[in-house]
Amino acid sequence: MTFDPATLVYNDAGLIPAIAQDAASGEVLMMAWMNAEAVARTLETGRVTYWSRSREAFWVKGESSGHVQELVALRVDCDRDCLLVTVNQTGPACHTLRRSCFYTEVQDGAEVEIMAPVTA
Amino acid sequence: MTFDPATLVYNDAGLIPAIAQDAASGEVLMMAWMNAEAVARTLETGRVTYWSRSREAFWVKGESSGHVQELVALRVDCDRDCLLVTVNQTGPACHTLRRSCFYTEVQDGAEVEIMAPVTA
Repeated sequence: MTFDPATLVYNDAGLIPAIAQDAASGEVLMMAWMNAEAVARTLETGRVTYWSRSREAFWVKGESSGHVQELVALRVDCDRDCLLVTVNQTGPACHTLRRSCFYTEVQDGAEVEIMAPVTA
Repeated sequence: MTFDPATLVYNDAGLIPAIAQDAASGEVLMMAWMNAEAVARTLETGRVTYWSRSREAFWVKGESSGHVQELVALRVDCDRDCLLVTVNQTGPACHTLRRSCFYTEVQDGAEVEIMAPVTA
């Protein structure tokens, strides 16, 4: 079946969550949002492209930081309302310069930082 | 710092997306939603508990199917608006009886099923 981004299920703002996973390590790096055009651009260019809700603009991941995500595979979930992109991540995925955005773990009721920023 | 579910960032419906990842294999299994009480119950019981938007009720994963998710770790992302739960998954995570909900991959513009339902 031919894939058409318009057949995905978007929220009221026209967005769908996209989970980025490191293709090599399996680490979950981040979650951000795409609209239909961002999905199309991601597939066309091979560069993962989100929709920035704060800037209200396309966000080619790494365009300014250099921390690009090269698309390896794009998967759709059973409800067609969530995407999983596996990527080759250059540098840290998180704007805090940690490898993953999920660097805070709840341990015995307390928040523990389990990952330090990457140093150059 | 003590963790308080009320300090997370929820959407207008009071929900936060939660990504479930297999603790052993690293496979991303599904994404569903939690409210603050579901986050608290997940931590208290060690059984991953979502909020079902369709049923408008708490959804203790596997309560009816037996395909439970035992919590291994709960992580918060940098913006505090997304959760990652690593889990010990009993049986398939997807209601279609596939191991993961992300069983459809876009390959050369076509949708390809990359995972078959688990047979008993």
